[in-house]
Amino acid sequence: MALKDVIDGPRNEIGLSEVVQALSAQFGERFQTGKAHREQHAHSTSYLPAQLPDGVVFVESGKEVQAIVRLCAHHKVPIIGFGAGTSLEGQVNAASGGICVDFTWMNKVLRVSPEDLDCTVEPGVTREALNVYLRDTGLFFPIDPGANASIGGMASTRASGTNAVRYGTMKDNVLALTVVTANGEEITTAQRARKSSAGYDLTRLFVGAEGTLGLITSITLRLQGIPEKIGGGVCGFPSLEDACNAVITTIQLGIPVARIELLDQMQMRACNAYSKLTYPEQPTLFVEFHGTDEAVALYSRQFAAIAADFGCTDFRYTEDAEERAQLWKARHNAYWASRALAPHLAGLSTDVCVPISRLADCVAETQADIAAEGFLAPIVGHAGDGNFHVLVLFDDKSEEDVARVEAFTERLSARALAMQGTCTGEHGIGQGKMRYLEAELGAAIPAMRAVKQALDPDNIFNPGKIFRL
Amino acid sequence: MALKDVIDGPRNEIGLSEVVQALSAQFGERFQTGKAHREQHAHSTSYLPAQLPDGVVFVESGKEVQAIVRLCAHHKVPIIGFGAGTSLEGQVNAASGGICVDFTWMNKVLRVSPEDLDCTVEPGVTREALNVYLRDTGLFFPIDPGANASIGGMASTRASGTNAVRYGTMKDNVLALTVVTANGEEITTAQRARKSSAGYDLTRLFVGAEGTLGLITSITLRLQGIPEKIGGGVCGFPSLEDACNAVITTIQLGIPVARIELLDQMQMRACNAYSKLTYPEQPTLFVEFHGTDEAVALYSRQFAAIAADFGCTDFRYTEDAEERAQLWKARHNAYWASRALAPHLAGLSTDVCVPISRLADCVAETQADIAAEGFLAPIVGHAGDGNFHVLVLFDDKSEEDVARVEAFTERLSARALAMQGTCTGEHGIGQGKMRYLEAELGAAIPAMRAVKQALDPDNIFNPGKIFRL
Repeated sequence: MALKDVIDGPRNEIGLSEVVQALSAQFGERFQTGKAHREQHAHSTSYLPAQLPDGVVFVESGKEVQAIVRLCAHHKVPIIGFGAGTSLEGQVNAASGGICVDFTWMNKVLRVSPEDLDCTVEPGVTREALNVYLRDTGLFFPIDPGANASIGGMASTRASGTNAVRYGTMKDNVLALTVVTANGEEITTAQRARKSSAGYDLTRLFVGAEGTLGLITSITLRLQGIPEKIGGGVCGFPSLEDACNAVITTIQLGIPVARIELLDQMQMRACNAYSKLTYPEQPTLFVEFHGTDEAVALYSRQFAAIAADFGCTDFRYTEDAEERAQLWKARHNAYWASRALAPHLAGLSTDVCVPISRLADCVAETQADIAAEGFLAPIVGHAGDGNFHVLVLFDDKSEEDVARVEAFTERLSARALAMQGTCTGEHGIGQGKMRYLEAELGAAIPAMRAVKQALDPDNIFNPGKIFRL
Repeated sequence: MALKDVIDGPRNEIGLSEVVQALSAQFGERFQTGKAHREQHAHSTSYLPAQLPDGVVFVESGKEVQAIVRLCAHHKVPIIGFGAGTSLEGQVNAASGGICVDFTWMNKVLRVSPEDLDCTVEPGVTREALNVYLRDTGLFFPIDPGANASIGGMASTRASGTNAVRYGTMKDNVLALTVVTANGEEITTAQRARKSSAGYDLTRLFVGAEGTLGLITSITLRLQGIPEKIGGGVCGFPSLEDACNAVITTIQLGIPVARIELLDQMQMRACNAYSKLTYPEQPTLFVEFHGTDEAVALYSRQFAAIAADFGCTDFRYTEDAEERAQLWKARHNAYWASRALAPHLAGLSTDVCVPISRLADCVAETQADIAAEGFLAPIVGHAGDGNFHVLVLFDDKSEEDVARVEAFTERLSARALAMQGTCTGEHGIGQGKMRYLEAELGAAIPAMRAVKQALDPDNIFNPGKIFRL
C-alpha cells in the first residue's frame, strides 16, 4: 500500500541505545532485540506494512510498566503497547521505532465478584481465556470481536463485534482502568460501582485511545450471567433491503437480539463453497437470542414473524448447541471462506458504521462499487448496529490493484460519512484511517490533539497514530 | 454549610465591565443584570449557598454561544452554563462571578429519526418536553432523574435515575454532541452511527464535565421504542438484606427490569403519612417491566418467584396504567413526603453508589448512623445500580446541626469508598463533593487537571468546580 498516512518520525537513536542498554540490564531474557521478535511484534492482521520496534519487553507487573515508562520518558523514546497483535489498522506499528511492551505474560485474572457481575484482569488476558476462567462462575464476558484478542488491546481499540447489539462495546463494558501515564504514575480511573458521576470520564478517554495516552495495566469489566438458553437461527431474504428492514423492525420493537449478522450474496457463496453448505445465495441474517427458556422461545417467535413479513420463507432455528454451531458455521468461517475465494491474493479488511436506516443503501451502493471494480469483496455486517465489514481481495504486488483498493476504501468511507456514519465502527483509526478521521471529525481534532499533548507532552505513547500532532 | 470546598476566586472586575457592556449592546433585553435574575440563576436544588453571576444571557443559537465565549475568553471572564437549575451540588454557582448562559430558549428538537431511534435536540429541551414531542413517533427518551431537567444539564452532569438499570445513564444515551470550546469554535464530537472507534471519545469527556470544558450546543440522543406494555409492582421484605438479595438475583438472572427502586422503613413511613397509604413500614421494592405483552408477563412472573424466595408475601402487581400510578404513588412522592416529615427543616440530598453486593451493608450501616445521630433521613435507592440517596433533614440555622450533617455525609462517602463504591452515582461533584473526589480518585486528578488546562487554558468555563486547579 502507498500508506499515505504513515508517519516515519525521526528516530531518537541516542536515547534508544541508552534505553536498550538499561532494559537489557533489568529484564535479561525478557527483553529481546532480535529480528524475529521485532518482526513478530510489528506483524498484525493489518494490510499495512510492518514497522519494527527496536526491542520487545515482556512485562509481568504494573511496577515494571512504570519503570519502563519512566525510563523511556526520560530518554524520549516511543513506547508501543502490544496485546495479541490482532488489530487491523497498523495500531502496533512502531512508526518512529521504540520499545514494544508485550503484555502476554500479564495474564492473570485478578478478581471475580460473581455477585456484582464484574471482574478485574491484567491486560494480557485474552477474551477466550477469560471466558474459560469464568465458566464455573456462571458468568461470561460478552464482547466478541472474532479474533482472540487481549482485553487490554480490546479496551485500547474500543473493540466490539457480534454481541455488541445486545451487550454494547468495550466502552460500555469497562468499569474502570489502571493506567500508567507519561510521568510513570499509575492512576485508577474509577471505582467499581456500576455508575458514577465523579469527575471526568477518564475510563472512556483511555478506552479507544489506541495506546496513545498511556499504558493500561488492569481492566475492571462488567460480566453477564451465562444465559439459561441460547437459540440461534438463519434466514435468507429476497433482497438486501428486506433483510435490513427485518433488522430495523427487530431493533425498534426492542426484541433483545444477542447477535444479528448480515451476510451478503457473495459472502454466502464463499461460505457454501468453503464449508460445503447449501444455503441459498441470497442476503442472509444469522440471529441469536439469550435468556431464560421462555424468553428465548418468545424472542425467536417474535423474530420469525418479522422475518416472514419481509419475505423469509425458511427461518431455520434451533436451541441445540451442536445444531446451532452447524447452522452458524457459515458465519463463523466467513473470514477464511472469503480468503479461500482467491488464496493467492492479499486481503484488506475494513469497516464502516452507519445509522441503521441507511444500512441497506450503504451496503447496496458498496456492492455496486465492488461489481463495477470487479473485486472479490464479500460483505458481512453486525447489522443491528449498522456496522459492516468488507474484505477486499487484491494483488498487493500490483500497483494498479493497490491504487484501486485505496480509492475504493476512500469511497466507502466517504459514503458512510455522507450517510452520517463513521469511517470505523470497531477497527479504530491507527495509521490506516487517519485521513478519514480528518474528513469525519476534523474540527474536533484540535481538541483531541490538546488532550494528547496534555497527557503525553513528549509524544512517547504510540506516536504517529490516530491524528497528526 | 461551611462550604469548605467552595472557591471564591478573584473576580475579574475590569474584564467583567467590558463584557457586561458588550452583552448589553448585543443582546438588549436578553441580557439581564438585575438581582432577581442573578439570584434565580444561582438558585438550584442544592443545599449550598448561592453565588450569583454578574449577568444572565438568554441564548438562542450556537452562533450566539460562540460569540459569547469569544468575548468572555478575550476578557478572561467566567462562563457558567444553565439548564433548568436542578443540579444538587452547586454546579451552577458562579464561584468567581461571571456570565450565566441560560439555554432555556434554545429548546428546539432539531431532528427525530424514528427508524434509527435517535434525535438531536438543543440543550434547553427538558426531558418531559422531549417525551411529549416524541409521543406520536412511538419513541421515548428513557433517562429520568426525577426533576424535569434540561437535556444539556443532564449531559453535563452525567445524569441517570430510575431507568438507568435498564437503559443506562447519559453516558450510554448520548451519541454525539456539538460543543463550543474555549477558542469559540463549535466542534462535533461524533457522527450519528450507533457505535464508532474513530478517535478519542470526546463525547464522553464532555458528558459529566459539568460545564468546565465547554458549552454543549446540541445533543444527539439514543431513543427507545415505547414499550407495548408496562407492568409495575410493589413488594415488602422482612429485611433490607432480603430486599437487596432479591435485587441481586434479578440482575444476575438477566431479567431486564426497567426500574427497581428500594425505599427503606423511614421512607415508607413518610410516604404512608404524606400520601395516606397503608403500606407496611418495611424495606420495599418498587419494580417496573417494559416489553411486549408476553415479555412483561414473563418478567413479572420470574420476578415474583424471586421476591417470594426472599420473603415477600404480598407482591402487588398491575399492568393497568392508572393502578400502576396508584401503586407507585409512594415512590413518586418520596421527596416531598420526606420533606413533610419536618417542613420547618432544610434538606440535604446526597447520593453514593456501591457494587450491588455491598448495597445492603452500605444502607444498613447508614441507617445505623442515622439512628445514632437521631436524624430524620429517609433512604431511597436505584437498587439495581447499587445507587442510593439520603435526604437529611436538618436545621440549617444551627451550626451544630450543620457540622453534624457535614460529618455524616463525610462518613457516608468514606463508607461507599471503603466498599469500592463512588461518592456520587449521579449528582456529580460540583462544589459539594470536591474533597470526596480527592479521596476517591486523587491520583487521577492530575490527569483531569491536565485535560482541563489543555481545553480551557484560561479557566473560563465554570471555574471552581470538580477539582482545584
